Amino acid sequence: MRSGSLNEELLESEELFNGRFLHAFRDKVVLPDGSLTVREYFVHPGAVMVIPILQDDGERCMVVLERQFRYPVGKVIVEFPAGKLDRGEAAFDCARRELKEETGYAAQQWARAGIIHPAVAYSTETIEVWFARGLVLGSRCLDDGEFLEVFSATSDELFQWCSDGTITDGKTMAGVLWLQNVNRGAWALNWQNNLIDEVG
Amino acid sequence: MRSGSLNEELLESEELFNGRFLHAFRDKVVLPDGSLTVREYFVHPGAVMVIPILQDDGERCMVVLERQFRYPVGKVIVEFPAGKLDRGEAAFDCARRELKEETGYAAQQWARAGIIHPAVAYSTETIEVWFARGLVLGSRCLDDGEFLEVFSATSDELFQWCSDGTITDGKTMAGVLWLQNVNRGAWALNWQNNLIDEVG
Repeated sequence: MRSGSLNEELLESEELFNGRFLHAFRDKVVLPDGSLTVREYFVHPGAVMVIPILQDDGERCMVVLERQFRYPVGKVIVEFPAGKLDRGEAAFDCARRELKEETGYAAQQWARAGIIHPAVAYSTETIEVWFARGLVLGSRCLDDGEFLEVFSATSDELFQWCSDGTITDGKTMAGVLWLQNVNRGAWALNWQNNLIDEVG
Repeated sequence: MRSGSLNEELLESEELFNGRFLHAFRDKVVLPDGSLTVREYFVHPGAVMVIPILQDDGERCMVVLERQFRYPVGKVIVEFPAGKLDRGEAAFDCARRELKEETGYAAQQWARAGIIHPAVAYSTETIEVWFARGLVLGSRCLDDGEFLEVFSATSDELFQWCSDGTITDGKTMAGVLWLQNVNRGAWALNWQNNLIDEVG
Protein backbone atom coordinates (compact mmCIF):
# COMPACT_ATOMS: atom_id res chain seq x y z
CA MET A 1 0.00 0.00 0.00
CA ARG A 2 2.93 2.45 0.50
CA SER A 3 2.85 2.90 -3.19
CA GLY A 4 5.69 4.06 -5.38
CA SER A 5 2.99 5.04 -7.83
CA LEU A 6 2.46 8.30 -5.96
CA ASN A 7 5.95 9.54 -6.82
CA GLU A 8 6.65 12.61 -8.93
CA GLU A 9 9.79 12.96 -11.02
CA LEU A 10 11.89 16.01 -11.76
CA LEU A 11 12.06 17.08 -15.38
CA GLU A 12 13.57 20.56 -15.15
CA SER A 13 14.41 22.93 -12.30
CA GLU A 14 14.39 26.73 -12.45
CA GLU A 15 15.66 29.01 -9.70
CA LEU A 16 12.99 31.59 -8.85
CA PHE A 17 15.23 33.68 -6.65
CA ASN A 18 17.99 33.49 -4.10
CA GLY A 19 17.39 36.00 -1.31
CA ARG A 20 19.22 36.60 1.93
CA PHE A 21 17.25 33.75 3.46
CA LEU A 22 14.72 32.37 0.97
CA HIS A 23 15.98 30.29 -1.93
CA ALA A 24 13.08 29.33 -4.17
CA PHE A 25 12.70 27.01 -7.14
CA ARG A 26 10.05 26.05 -9.66
CA ASP A 27 10.41 22.50 -10.96
CA LYS A 28 8.64 20.88 -13.86
CA VAL A 29 7.67 17.40 -12.70
CA VAL A 30 6.06 14.29 -14.14
CA LEU A 31 3.00 13.11 -12.22
CA PRO A 32 2.13 9.44 -11.62
CA ASP A 33 -0.17 9.41 -14.69
CA GLY A 34 2.55 10.83 -16.94
CA SER A 35 1.11 14.35 -17.12
CA LEU A 36 3.21 17.42 -16.24
CA THR A 37 2.86 20.04 -13.55
CA VAL A 38 5.04 22.56 -11.71
CA ARG A 39 6.04 22.52 -8.07
CA GLU A 40 7.22 25.72 -6.38
CA TYR A 41 9.07 25.37 -3.10
CA PHE A 42 12.00 26.55 -1.24
CA VAL A 43 15.15 25.00 -0.10
CA HIS A 44 15.74 25.38 3.61
CA PRO A 45 19.05 24.55 5.31
CA GLY A 46 17.32 22.49 8.03
CA ALA A 47 16.74 23.37 11.65
CA VAL A 48 16.65 22.03 15.17
CA MET A 49 14.22 22.49 18.04
CA VAL A 50 15.17 21.86 21.66
CA ILE A 51 12.77 20.85 24.43
CA PRO A 52 14.71 21.99 27.51
CA ILE A 53 13.52 20.34 30.74
CA LEU A 54 14.29 22.34 33.86
CA GLN A 55 12.72 20.12 36.47
CA ASP A 56 11.19 16.73 36.15
CA ASP A 57 8.68 15.15 38.57
CA GLY A 58 7.52 12.16 36.55
CA GLU A 59 4.24 13.15 34.86
CA ARG A 60 4.91 16.87 35.35
CA CYS A 61 7.91 18.97 34.48
CA MET A 62 9.04 22.52 33.89
CA VAL A 63 10.33 23.61 30.50
CA VAL A 64 12.14 26.60 29.00
CA LEU A 65 10.24 28.56 26.36
CA GLU A 66 10.69 31.71 24.32
CA ARG A 67 8.55 34.60 23.20
CA GLN A 68 9.58 36.00 19.86
CA PHE A 69 7.94 38.38 17.42
CA ARG A 70 7.47 36.46 14.20
CA TYR A 71 7.15 38.96 11.39
CA PRO A 72 5.30 36.82 8.79
CA VAL A 73 2.42 36.15 11.22
CA GLY A 74 2.69 39.60 12.86
CA LYS A 75 2.60 38.33 16.44
CA VAL A 76 4.61 37.37 19.45
CA ILE A 77 4.78 33.57 19.30
CA VAL A 78 5.49 31.20 22.22
CA GLU A 79 7.85 28.45 21.11
CA PHE A 80 10.60 26.07 22.10
CA PRO A 81 14.13 27.27 21.32
CA ALA A 82 14.97 26.56 17.67
CA GLY A 83 17.24 27.68 14.91
CA LYS A 84 18.65 26.96 11.49
CA LEU A 85 21.70 24.82 10.83
CA ASP A 86 24.82 26.69 9.86
CA ARG A 87 26.44 25.41 6.67
CA GLY A 88 27.94 21.97 7.35
CA GLU A 89 26.79 21.97 10.97
CA ALA A 90 25.59 18.71 12.54
CA ALA A 91 22.08 18.88 14.03
CA PHE A 92 23.26 18.08 17.54
CA ASP A 93 25.89 20.83 17.43
CA CYS A 94 23.19 23.21 16.26
CA ALA A 95 20.90 22.13 19.11
CA ARG A 96 23.60 22.81 21.71
CA ARG A 97 24.54 26.11 20.07
CA GLU A 98 20.99 27.43 19.73
CA LEU A 99 20.05 26.45 23.28
CA LYS A 100 23.12 28.27 24.62
CA GLU A 101 22.83 31.33 22.39
CA GLU A 102 19.13 31.88 22.88
CA THR A 103 18.57 30.85 26.50
CA GLY A 104 22.02 30.72 28.11
CA TYR A 105 21.55 27.08 29.15
CA ALA A 106 23.99 24.23 28.60
CA ALA A 107 22.60 20.70 29.09
CA GLN A 108 24.27 17.68 30.66
CA GLN A 109 22.01 15.16 28.95
CA TRP A 110 20.54 15.04 25.49
CA ALA A 111 18.11 12.76 23.66
CA ARG A 112 17.11 12.89 20.00
CA ALA A 113 13.35 12.53 19.61
CA GLY A 114 12.82 12.58 15.85
CA ILE A 115 12.13 14.91 12.94
CA ILE A 116 9.33 17.22 11.86
CA HIS A 117 8.54 18.44 8.36
CA PRO A 118 6.78 21.74 9.08
CA ALA A 119 5.55 22.66 5.58
CA VAL A 120 5.64 19.67 3.22
CA ALA A 121 3.72 21.49 0.48
CA TYR A 122 6.32 24.18 -0.16
CA SER A 123 9.49 23.80 1.90
CA THR A 124 12.29 21.25 2.12
CA GLU A 125 12.71 22.11 5.81
CA THR A 126 13.36 19.30 8.28
CA ILE A 127 13.47 20.12 12.00
CA GLU A 128 15.36 17.70 14.21
CA VAL A 129 13.89 17.57 17.72
CA TRP A 130 16.13 17.14 20.76
CA PHE A 131 15.29 16.93 24.46
CA ALA A 132 17.78 18.49 26.89
CA ARG A 133 18.00 18.14 30.67
CA GLY A 134 20.47 18.73 33.48
CA LEU A 135 20.44 22.41 32.51
CA VAL A 136 23.17 24.75 33.74
CA LEU A 137 22.61 28.47 33.25
CA GLY A 138 25.37 30.59 31.73
CA SER A 139 25.13 33.75 29.66
CA ARG A 140 23.23 33.93 26.42
CA CYS A 141 24.43 35.50 23.21
CA LEU A 142 21.76 36.37 20.66
CA ASP A 143 22.45 36.85 16.97
CA ASP A 144 22.36 40.39 15.65
CA GLY A 145 18.76 41.39 15.02
CA GLU A 146 17.42 38.64 17.29
CA PHE A 147 15.14 39.76 20.11
CA LEU A 148 13.43 37.23 22.32
CA GLU A 149 12.31 36.66 25.89
CA VAL A 150 13.12 33.44 27.74
CA PHE A 151 10.76 32.13 30.40
CA SER A 152 9.78 28.87 32.03
CA ALA A 153 6.42 27.15 32.38
CA THR A 154 5.04 23.94 33.81
CA SER A 155 3.97 21.16 31.49
CA ASP A 156 0.38 21.71 32.68
CA GLU A 157 0.55 25.34 31.54
CA LEU A 158 2.01 24.19 28.24
CA PHE A 159 -0.88 21.75 27.62
CA GLN A 160 -3.40 24.43 28.59
CA TRP A 161 -1.81 26.93 26.16
CA CYS A 162 -1.93 24.43 23.29
CA SER A 163 -5.63 23.85 23.91
CA ASP A 164 -6.66 27.50 24.37
CA GLY A 165 -4.81 28.99 21.38
CA THR A 166 -1.99 30.70 23.31
CA ILE A 167 0.43 28.36 21.54
CA THR A 168 -0.14 27.99 17.78
CA ASP A 169 3.39 27.28 16.56
CA GLY A 170 3.29 23.93 14.73
CA LYS A 171 6.76 22.68 15.68
CA THR A 172 6.13 23.55 19.33
CA MET A 173 2.80 21.67 19.31
CA ALA A 174 4.55 18.65 17.78
CA GLY A 175 7.15 18.97 20.56
CA VAL A 176 4.39 19.07 23.17
CA LEU A 177 3.03 15.79 21.73
CA TRP A 178 6.48 14.30 22.38
CA LEU A 179 6.73 15.82 25.84
CA GLN A 180 3.30 14.61 26.91
CA ASN A 181 4.00 11.05 25.84
CA VAL A 182 7.51 11.00 27.32
CA ASN A 183 6.13 12.34 30.63
CA ARG A 184 3.49 9.60 30.66
CA GLY A 185 6.09 6.94 29.99
CA ALA A 186 4.43 6.03 26.67
CA TRP A 187 7.33 7.08 24.41
CA ALA A 188 10.94 6.29 25.28
CA LEU A 189 13.93 8.58 24.91
CA ASN A 190 17.51 7.41 24.74
CA TRP A 191 19.24 9.92 27.05
CA GLN A 192 22.96 10.30 26.65
CA ASN A 193 25.49 11.93 28.95
CA ASN A 194 28.36 14.15 27.99
CA LEU A 195 27.82 14.00 24.27
CA ILE A 196 29.64 17.29 24.11
CA ASP A 197 32.97 15.85 23.01
CA GLU A 198 31.65 12.73 21.35
CA VAL A 199 29.45 14.26 18.66
CA GLY A 200 31.33 16.38 16.15
CA MET B 1 5.84 40.09 30.33
CA ARG B 2 4.07 39.68 26.95
CA SER B 3 6.06 42.61 25.81
CA GLY B 4 5.20 44.95 22.97
CA SER B 5 8.89 45.72 22.93
CA LEU B 6 9.52 42.61 20.82
CA ASN B 7 7.53 44.02 17.91
CA GLU B 8 9.00 44.80 14.52
CA GLU B 9 7.60 47.49 12.26
CA LEU B 10 7.29 47.58 8.50
CA LEU B 11 9.26 50.29 6.72
CA GLU B 12 9.11 49.18 3.11
CA SER B 13 7.85 46.08 1.29
CA GLU B 14 9.23 44.68 -1.95
CA GLU B 15 7.64 41.84 -3.93
CA LEU B 16 10.26 39.18 -4.65
CA PHE B 17 8.11 37.21 -7.03
CA ASN B 18 4.59 36.06 -7.67
CA GLY B 19 4.59 32.48 -8.91
CA ARG B 20 1.76 30.09 -9.60
CA PHE B 21 1.62 29.28 -5.93
CA LEU B 22 4.39 31.11 -4.05
CA HIS B 23 4.06 34.85 -3.52
CA ALA B 24 7.17 36.14 -1.77
CA PHE B 25 8.13 39.48 -0.24
CA ARG B 26 11.16 41.11 1.30
CA ASP B 27 10.31 43.78 3.88
CA LYS B 28 12.59 46.29 5.49
CA VAL B 29 11.63 46.40 9.16
CA VAL B 30 12.59 48.35 12.26
CA LEU B 31 13.73 46.15 15.15
CA PRO B 32 12.89 46.85 18.80
CA ASP B 33 16.21 48.68 19.29
CA GLY B 34 15.59 50.94 16.28
CA SER B 35 18.01 49.17 13.97
CA LEU B 36 16.96 47.89 10.54
CA THR B 37 16.81 44.43 9.05
CA VAL B 38 15.02 42.59 6.25
CA ARG B 39 12.43 39.83 6.57
CA GLU B 40 11.75 37.51 3.65
CA TYR B 41 8.55 35.49 3.75
CA PHE B 42 5.68 34.41 1.74
CA VAL B 43 2.08 35.15 1.76
CA HIS B 44 -0.08 32.05 1.96
CA PRO B 45 -3.86 32.06 1.41
CA GLY B 46 -4.45 30.01 4.60
CA ALA B 47 -5.45 26.37 4.91
CA VAL B 48 -7.52 23.90 6.85
CA MET B 49 -6.80 20.45 8.23
CA VAL B 50 -9.53 17.96 9.08
CA ILE B 51 -9.28 15.20 11.70
CA PRO B 52 -11.94 12.77 10.45
CA ILE B 53 -13.11 10.31 13.11
CA LEU B 54 -14.56 7.11 11.72
CA GLN B 55 -15.32 5.26 14.91
CA ASP B 56 -15.08 6.41 18.47
CA ASP B 57 -14.74 4.15 21.54
CA GLY B 58 -13.82 6.68 24.20
CA GLU B 59 -10.05 6.59 24.58
CA ARG B 60 -9.55 4.89 21.22
CA CYS B 61 -10.84 5.81 17.81
CA MET B 62 -10.27 5.23 14.11
CA VAL B 63 -9.30 8.11 11.84
CA VAL B 64 -9.04 8.78 8.11
CA LEU B 65 -5.55 9.57 6.80
CA GLU B 66 -3.87 10.19 3.47
CA ARG B 67 -0.63 9.23 1.82
CA GLN B 68 0.63 11.83 -0.59
CA PHE B 69 3.94 12.38 -2.35
CA ARG B 70 5.23 15.74 -1.17
CA TYR B 71 7.69 17.00 -3.74
CA PRO B 72 9.71 19.44 -1.58
CA VAL B 73 10.63 16.69 0.89
CA GLY B 74 10.79 13.98 -1.80
CA LYS B 75 8.71 11.44 0.08
CA VAL B 76 5.30 9.95 0.56
CA ILE B 77 3.95 11.68 3.68
CA VAL B 78 1.17 10.41 5.96
CA GLU B 79 -1.13 13.27 6.92
CA PHE B 80 -4.63 14.31 7.82
CA PRO B 81 -6.71 15.69 4.93
CA ALA B 82 -5.85 19.35 4.36
CA GLY B 83 -5.97 22.02 1.70
CA LYS B 84 -5.68 25.69 0.89
CA LEU B 85 -8.56 28.15 1.11
CA ASP B 86 -9.97 29.28 -2.21
CA ARG B 87 -10.17 33.05 -2.58
CA GLY B 88 -12.86 34.40 -0.25
CA GLU B 89 -13.70 30.93 1.08
CA ALA B 90 -14.59 30.50 4.77
CA ALA B 91 -12.42 28.00 6.64
CA PHE B 92 -15.33 25.73 7.49
CA ASP B 93 -16.48 25.60 3.86
CA CYS B 94 -12.93 24.70 2.90
CA ALA B 95 -12.83 21.95 5.55
CA ARG B 96 -16.03 20.40 4.20
CA ARG B 97 -14.90 20.76 0.60
CA GLU B 98 -11.42 19.30 1.12
CA LEU B 99 -12.71 16.36 3.17
CA LYS B 100 -15.21 15.52 0.44
CA GLU B 101 -12.87 16.09 -2.51
CA GLU B 102 -9.92 14.18 -1.08
CA THR B 103 -11.58 11.35 0.85
CA GLY B 104 -15.20 11.21 -0.37
CA TYR B 105 -16.54 11.63 3.17
CA ALA B 106 -19.20 14.10 4.31
CA ALA B 107 -19.53 14.64 8.05
CA GLN B 108 -22.65 15.10 10.16
CA GLN B 109 -20.86 16.80 13.02
CA TRP B 110 -18.03 19.29 13.10
CA ALA B 111 -15.97 20.95 15.82
CA ARG B 112 -13.33 23.66 15.40
CA ALA B 113 -10.23 22.88 17.45
CA GLY B 114 -7.96 25.87 16.85
CA ILE B 115 -5.21 27.14 14.59
CA ILE B 116 -1.64 26.19 13.75
CA HIS B 117 1.11 28.39 12.34
CA PRO B 118 3.29 25.83 10.53
CA ALA B 119 6.28 28.01 9.60
CA VAL B 120 6.33 31.27 11.60
CA ALA B 121 9.83 32.21 10.40
CA TYR B 122 8.95 32.53 6.72
CA SER B 123 5.27 32.01 5.95
CA THR B 124 2.03 33.82 6.82
CA GLU B 125 0.21 30.47 6.67
CA THR B 126 -2.46 29.73 9.26
CA ILE B 127 -4.08 26.29 9.32
CA GLU B 128 -7.49 26.03 10.93
CA VAL B 129 -8.04 22.61 12.50
CA TRP B 130 -11.47 20.95 12.43
CA PHE B 131 -12.66 17.62 13.81
CA ALA B 132 -15.30 15.77 11.80
CA ARG B 133 -17.44 12.78 12.80
CA GLY B 134 -20.59 11.01 11.70
CA LEU B 135 -18.86 10.29 8.40
CA VAL B 136 -20.85 9.22 5.35
CA LEU B 137 -18.91 7.94 2.36
CA GLY B 138 -19.68 9.31 -1.09
CA SER B 139 -17.43 9.70 -4.10
CA ARG B 140 -14.25 11.73 -4.03
CA CYS B 141 -13.15 14.21 -6.63
CA LEU B 142 -9.48 15.12 -6.63
CA ASP B 143 -8.07 18.30 -8.13
CA ASP B 144 -6.16 17.94 -11.39
CA GLY B 145 -2.62 16.86 -10.62
CA GLU B 146 -3.56 15.59 -7.19
CA PHE B 147 -2.71 11.97 -6.41
CA LEU B 148 -3.26 10.54 -2.98
CA GLU B 149 -4.27 7.37 -1.17
CA VAL B 150 -6.90 7.40 1.55
CA PHE B 151 -6.73 4.88 4.39
CA SER B 152 -7.82 4.48 7.97
CA ALA B 153 -5.87 3.76 11.13
CA THR B 154 -6.53 3.37 14.83
CA SER B 155 -5.46 6.12 17.21
CA ASP B 156 -2.96 3.68 18.74
CA GLU B 157 -1.33 3.22 15.33
CA LEU B 158 -1.29 6.98 14.89
CA PHE B 159 0.52 7.52 18.22
CA GLN B 160 2.98 4.75 17.37
CA TRP B 161 3.71 6.32 13.97
CA CYS B 162 4.37 9.74 15.52
CA SER B 163 6.85 8.20 17.94
CA ASP B 164 8.69 5.98 15.45
CA GLY B 165 9.13 8.53 12.65
CA THR B 166 6.51 7.15 10.25
CA ILE B 167 4.62 10.43 10.68
CA THR B 168 6.78 13.57 10.46
CA ASP B 169 4.28 16.10 9.11
CA GLY B 170 4.11 18.96 11.60
CA LYS B 171 0.43 19.85 11.19
CA THR B 172 -0.53 16.19 11.53
CA MET B 173 1.53 15.83 14.74
CA ALA B 174 -0.16 18.96 16.13
CA GLY B 175 -3.49 17.36 15.19
CA VAL B 176 -2.50 14.16 16.99
CA LEU B 177 -1.82 16.25 20.13
CA TRP B 178 -5.41 17.48 19.87
CA LEU B 179 -6.78 14.01 19.20
CA GLN B 180 -4.94 12.43 22.10
CA ASN B 181 -6.19 15.03 24.57
CA VAL B 182 -9.74 14.98 23.22
CA ASN B 183 -9.78 11.16 23.47
CA ARG B 184 -8.59 11.36 27.09
CA GLY B 185 -11.27 13.90 27.92
CA ALA B 186 -8.64 16.52 28.80
CA TRP B 187 -9.52 19.00 26.01
CA ALA B 188 -13.12 19.79 25.11
CA LEU B 189 -14.60 20.19 21.66
CA ASN B 190 -17.80 22.02 20.88
CA TRP B 191 -19.47 19.62 18.42
CA GLN B 192 -22.15 21.06 16.20
CA ASN B 193 -24.75 19.30 14.07
CA ASN B 194 -25.88 20.18 10.60
CA LEU B 195 -23.66 23.19 10.22
CA ILE B 196 -23.92 22.64 6.49
CA ASP B 197 -26.57 25.28 5.92
CA GLU B 198 -25.73 27.52 8.83
CA VAL B 199 -22.15 28.42 7.99
CA GLY B 200 -21.73 30.26 4.74
